Amino acid sequence: MFEISGRSINLALSHRGRQALKQVGMEDTIVSKGIPMHSRMVHSLNGTQSPIPYGKKGQVILLLQSAETYPNTKLNFAHKLLDWSTETGAMTFVRAEGAKEEIQADLIVGCDGAFSAIRKQFLRQSRFNYSQTYIPHGYLELTMPPINGEFAMKPNYLHIWPRNTFMMIALPNLDKTFTCTLFMPFEEFEKVTTGDQVIKFFQKYFPDAIPLIGAEALKRDYFHLPAQAMVSVKCSPYHLGDKCVLMGDAAHAVVPFYGQGMNAGFEDCLVFNEIMDQLNEDFSAVLPEYTRVRVPDDHAIADLAMYNYVEMRAHVNSKWFLFRKYVDNFLHIIMPRTIIPLYTMVTFTRTRYHKAVKRWHWQDKVINQGLLFCAAVSVAGGSYLLVRYPPNMPNIPMEKLWPRLQALKSPF
Amino acid sequence: MFEISGRSINLALSHRGRQALKQVGMEDTIVSKGIPMHSRMVHSLNGTQSPIPYGKKGQVILLLQSAETYPNTKLNFAHKLLDWSTETGAMTFVRAEGAKEEIQADLIVGCDGAFSAIRKQFLRQSRFNYSQTYIPHGYLELTMPPINGEFAMKPNYLHIWPRNTFMMIALPNLDKTFTCTLFMPFEEFEKVTTGDQVIKFFQKYFPDAIPLIGAEALKRDYFHLPAQAMVSVKCSPYHLGDKCVLMGDAAHAVVPFYGQGMNAGFEDCLVFNEIMDQLNEDFSAVLPEYTRVRVPDDHAIADLAMYNYVEMRAHVNSKWFLFRKYVDNFLHIIMPRTIIPLYTMVTFTRTRYHKAVKRWHWQDKVINQGLLFCAAVSVAGGSYLLVRYPPNMPNIPMEKLWPRLQALKSPF
Repeated sequence: MFEISGRSINLALSHRGRQALKQVGMEDTIVSKGIPMHSRMVHSLNGTQSPIPYGKKGQVILLLQSAETYPNTKLNFAHKLLDWSTETGAMTFVRAEGAKEEIQADLIVGCDGAFSAIRKQFLRQSRFNYSQTYIPHGYLELTMPPINGEFAMKPNYLHIWPRNTFMMIALPNLDKTFTCTLFMPFEEFEKVTTGDQVIKFFQKYFPDAIPLIGAEALKRDYFHLPAQAMVSVKCSPYHLGDKCVLMGDAAHAVVPFYGQGMNAGFEDCLVFNEIMDQLNEDFSAVLPEYTRVRVPDDHAIADLAMYNYVEMRAHVNSKWFLFRKYVDNFLHIIMPRTIIPLYTMVTFTRTRYHKAVKRWHWQDKVINQGLLFCAAVSVAGGSYLLVRYPPNMPNIPMEKLWPRLQALKSPF
Repeated sequence: MFEISGRSINLALSHRGRQALKQVGMEDTIVSKGIPMHSRMVHSLNGTQSPIPYGKKGQVILLLQSAETYPNTKLNFAHKLLDWSTETGAMTFVRAEGAKEEIQADLIVGCDGAFSAIRKQFLRQSRFNYSQTYIPHGYLELTMPPINGEFAMKPNYLHIWPRNTFMMIALPNLDKTFTCTLFMPFEEFEKVTTGDQVIKFFQKYFPDAIPLIGAEALKRDYFHLPAQAMVSVKCSPYHLGDKCVLMGDAAHAVVPFYGQGMNAGFEDCLVFNEIMDQLNEDFSAVLPEYTRVRVPDDHAIADLAMYNYVEMRAHVNSKWFLFRKYVDNFLHIIMPRTIIPLYTMVTFTRTRYHKAVKRWHWQDKVINQGLLFCAAVSVAGGSYLLVRYPPNMPNIPMEKLWPRLQALKSPF
């Protein structure tokens, strides 16, 4: 089941999603129609651009076309789910022209997105755990048109304008446009109410984007739709008897700050398929097992995406955070099997999400203790040497030494 | 609004609830009809009983009778809410005999419990944060009849049978019966399926309760209703425009392990009233302010109740935990304004719940650091003295010393 109407959003496709596509023979088709993104491209306030590594994106429409080729598949659009019975599996839809339609299902797979209509029945059951958390940020999309039939900025990059509490990103489309997404707290959106304020705001924070989007288009499109909310949804169990199972955003909507939303959804299918094979397609056994296996992983990625949302704003400018990232990557190079950065496990492997988190915490502890130990040994050794062999040091007063120490830049 | 039908549950009334009742002149009436509980009475496996301090309980029916005396109050029973409009405040009810009734409200106060029908409209709004969490434990109620017209056990006590992962409590009623509540993981409930298994189970864990409940009644009543689920509900905001506000369990159902559910609900009214006075009863200002002020406190008590649920099982047998409780209480006696145990702040004061939690964390840090400092000073001082003045100690080998050290009992 796909959403009846939705906006077209650029999605990042990484290892897990590709593995799922491979299983249904769609990997090459999808990847060939996507735009590879080798790097992020960071736009600073003065317009300079600097690249950093990244992933890929796919085309949902191809999946629909491929699904259609299966003889046992029928696609129905513009059907709104009114209600469904947990006992019989009977589903009542209302069609676009208003007629009601009743359908009997052996198994209902609820993949109807973050605001799932299927999930509403789950909420009426006892012992269904559920949470929906909206973040204080909203997002707004703007289009950057091609210039002379070519991309306005370098394609193959995720363009980022990081500005502390808010940021803008731009992703390339096949028609040579870029979709720019502005993330900002709702209270900031509420402050910008006129076209002139939009221009003033962009002049202050994203001056290099104004000529690329176009000042008039910017004034107009900014108010085309209100800022959209972002929600994180977690729930458990994912199944109801042997009649219904939730997958994708219906089971676990995540905030978009780890680029794993679609990948986690695709991996749901892969895991479900694996369990179907293990348990001989017996729904009464498969569904509880799917819940047991998949819930901790989906909850882990939802938490990670939320953690990244907080981290991106709070830590990205912290020296210690950057130093630790540097140490992690360095250790991964010299001990590739022992220390694997969290981002690598999540994006480029199929390590179960909850195991990746566990391992991350373990690595963190080990590395921090290692650094502490190194620091202690250096201090102790240094002190010993200083006492044992007092050096002939120039006598620099503290007021002079301090600015020099502060001027020492980290190498990143 | 009160629940149309519900079970009669014993509730603990403490300081916050009493302050709210006092405001409407009901404190004395309610307290006089309640059964004071000075202490807990702990039943060990071998039947010995030992007391520990506690709170009080009230009678909801008296509140209804009192509400009825207000000329501007009308009580309607057996009205089920079908739907309501967030724009107009129009509410559609269905009456017991099936007829629909439309009512127009200036302000809807949703106090319709943990499974609030009012709250459903909130869930349809964007940016409504919501979570419902069921705990793995269920509860089951049994009645302990009077013996020769008298209470079967000492009244004025909350009787507790703590048994690690599960426990039973008993609370006295005005008709000289006790209501026993058995808390146990659902998976344990599922293991007991016949009358004989019930007796066997009670013989193993609550032998002294069998003759008091009666073996035949026990076999029968245990299966009267299935074990009931317990849910913790948190949400935000509590208001929708200037038309509707949530209070009590509808806004914050808590698990029953801090005895604060009813008290927090009553305090909601008190806080709402205070804000109504401050802002001249202007709903469009009062409702957002009520959300701003009250959400952090209700979330704090929901978290505390959940923490207590975990703590009751995990820490209650830990020596360190008991030692810290002892230290906290001791420090409270010598520095009553500086160190106030969390339980005291929550139960016997109107300290805002979230401030109580903050203060608790601060106290915890200070006390732990204090203890660490004392320990360090003792060790350092002791070592110095040992080195400076070596004692004439008998030479006890470690294998002999160790059992002696282990035999040292904590004073609790």
